[in-house]
Amino acid sequence: MIVGIVGAGQLARMSQQAAIALGVELRVLAADQDESAAKVIVDTCVGDYTDLADLRTFAKGCDVVTFDHEHVPTEHIRALIDEGVAVHPGPDALIHAQDKAVMRERLTAMGAPCPAWARVASVADVERFAGEHGRPVVLKAVRGGYDGRGVWVVRTADEAAEVLGHGIELLAEQFVPFERELAVLVARSPHGQGVSYPVVETVQEDGICVEVIAPAQGLDPEHAADAQRLALSIARELEVTGLLAVEMFQTSSGLVVNELAMRPHNSGHWTIEGARTSQFEQHLRAVLDLPLGSPAPAAPVVVMANLLGGPDPDVLGRYEHVMANDPGIKIHYYGKDVRPGRKIGHVTALGADLDEVRPRARHAAVCLKGPLD
Amino acid sequence: MIVGIVGAGQLARMSQQAAIALGVELRVLAADQDESAAKVIVDTCVGDYTDLADLRTFAKGCDVVTFDHEHVPTEHIRALIDEGVAVHPGPDALIHAQDKAVMRERLTAMGAPCPAWARVASVADVERFAGEHGRPVVLKAVRGGYDGRGVWVVRTADEAAEVLGHGIELLAEQFVPFERELAVLVARSPHGQGVSYPVVETVQEDGICVEVIAPAQGLDPEHAADAQRLALSIARELEVTGLLAVEMFQTSSGLVVNELAMRPHNSGHWTIEGARTSQFEQHLRAVLDLPLGSPAPAAPVVVMANLLGGPDPDVLGRYEHVMANDPGIKIHYYGKDVRPGRKIGHVTALGADLDEVRPRARHAAVCLKGPLD
Repeated sequence: MIVGIVGAGQLARMSQQAAIALGVELRVLAADQDESAAKVIVDTCVGDYTDLADLRTFAKGCDVVTFDHEHVPTEHIRALIDEGVAVHPGPDALIHAQDKAVMRERLTAMGAPCPAWARVASVADVERFAGEHGRPVVLKAVRGGYDGRGVWVVRTADEAAEVLGHGIELLAEQFVPFERELAVLVARSPHGQGVSYPVVETVQEDGICVEVIAPAQGLDPEHAADAQRLALSIARELEVTGLLAVEMFQTSSGLVVNELAMRPHNSGHWTIEGARTSQFEQHLRAVLDLPLGSPAPAAPVVVMANLLGGPDPDVLGRYEHVMANDPGIKIHYYGKDVRPGRKIGHVTALGADLDEVRPRARHAAVCLKGPLD
Repeated sequence: MIVGIVGAGQLARMSQQAAIALGVELRVLAADQDESAAKVIVDTCVGDYTDLADLRTFAKGCDVVTFDHEHVPTEHIRALIDEGVAVHPGPDALIHAQDKAVMRERLTAMGAPCPAWARVASVADVERFAGEHGRPVVLKAVRGGYDGRGVWVVRTADEAAEVLGHGIELLAEQFVPFERELAVLVARSPHGQGVSYPVVETVQEDGICVEVIAPAQGLDPEHAADAQRLALSIARELEVTGLLAVEMFQTSSGLVVNELAMRPHNSGHWTIEGARTSQFEQHLRAVLDLPLGSPAPAAPVVVMANLLGGPDPDVLGRYEHVMANDPGIKIHYYGKDVRPGRKIGHVTALGADLDEVRPRARHAAVCLKGPLD
């Protein structure tokens, strides 16, 4: 059984751990042989995911094709499917993770809670939107943004003009004064089976997720169930196959959907040790249309902290201190070149009590990053 | 950082899951490209582990060399070390897992509890041993045995003559009327740090381990501590670097050491999900002389059942039933050719209560094996 993954970043790399257990073979389409997943997957095709010929060569012989990222052109996915390739998630679902305007239209139509939004093409459009919904206004690139890239919070017409100057398709969204950010990760199989992981809290700095707390602490069980129901209903409505991560804002008046991703997601890395079924195993099971695994947590509290690159690339040289300090900390290092601010790994701490677990995860992430100058 | 593993069976394969997390690169020396670990490790050298030239080529550039099995000739290991290769465990430790007579001599000298034993070269030797220590007599191949191969329980002089007819070096051991079999897995680093996993019970059928229960149920805490102390003292005395599995008999008069292994061991597969640090991660940490990880259990009871091949090789075709029946069962399938009776994978169930967990593991192993005719 061969699962093809377009893209060879850390998500494909961590999928290999699950594939090894299941005896499923992975093939990746990598930009080059040095990518994170290409280092640990024997069947690596080097090619360009925007090139249909490369995608065809890659897909040949795969039982199913899935994704490490959302950047494959929709028309290429349709072409593969027309030629008989099984692709999960399919293009009609994936478009909602590729195009934020399509996503907002569809979620609004299904009655999912969204911020007020509008397509904008001029400063006048943004000013009109600000007049109706207040300032600041959040401008988002309709396509291609991630990790805070492609998102601008603008307060003035001048700031809006600067963003419009990039010449890309834009969406305006009402600024949501949230209490915290939550994420719900669900899986859905072609059969229609769905499961939801516990609701987690995600902590962002400069638009990058730095920490995930599972489960979100102090969340009313009814609100948690609401969030899970919402994510499962989006997965069903959009006919997602594979994983769906729904990023949400928790506000004083309820939940608001922020973003969607249809692949293993940073907010689910805690599941590798922290849940009975890791998100990577779950995604493989879902795209292979196998029965989904238990999303039950394996510890009362799990905290995942992202490891960002610092100026000194010798991460392995810092293992000794971190491991000696905390024999229970779980280190994940993606084998990527270290660049300041780049996500190069994560650490996970598990335990009974947030006050014990959270400092452990933070300490390990800070120590592994190394000296700042 | 490159860790070279001689051998490319399932132990090297599962080591890759731990290496992916740590960002450590593995290289394996495989007999051919189709071996279990060669399918998931990019840096695979094909060669013969009994050939020093092949070992040299393989070891070049490795930060440390370790083993998937115990069959590398001692003189070749010494040659590599003389040429500056770091090898863990070293030959003076490993010999005790390669040569049962050397092992018995050393354990007897250090006062570790062993059955009565003697080297035997003739029927007269066996008869003399039987006269002193009773029948049946256990005959063991001094070198090369595993999984019940190389072990014979003989009751008569004729049976002894048949075994002696194989023309191999033999050891006689007193038959131990044990209550059950236990195993203790410990790790020791070149620094001398040692950790012990909880004592487990191993259940054998026809000389093959079919089930492991972690921790061993109903074991007196003092006896458990004794067993751990014994295993750690053997690791220290033999200067083991890496993992040491000590298989023991529990008898009415105490513990008796049966066998030693110096590598990840079947009795430790439960640690992948069942302990904070898997035995595979622990072995990598130990041979790299990194601080050892926590051996703390991740669930009150963990049962591992080996998956043996049946007549129908379509194991993947049986996933649907097994996964639907038990969303929490963890399947490990080694990507090996299925042959009746061959170890081709294992399953792990975790929970609060043996009476709930054990039938789950057994059911999954039986179902995955498939129909018997």
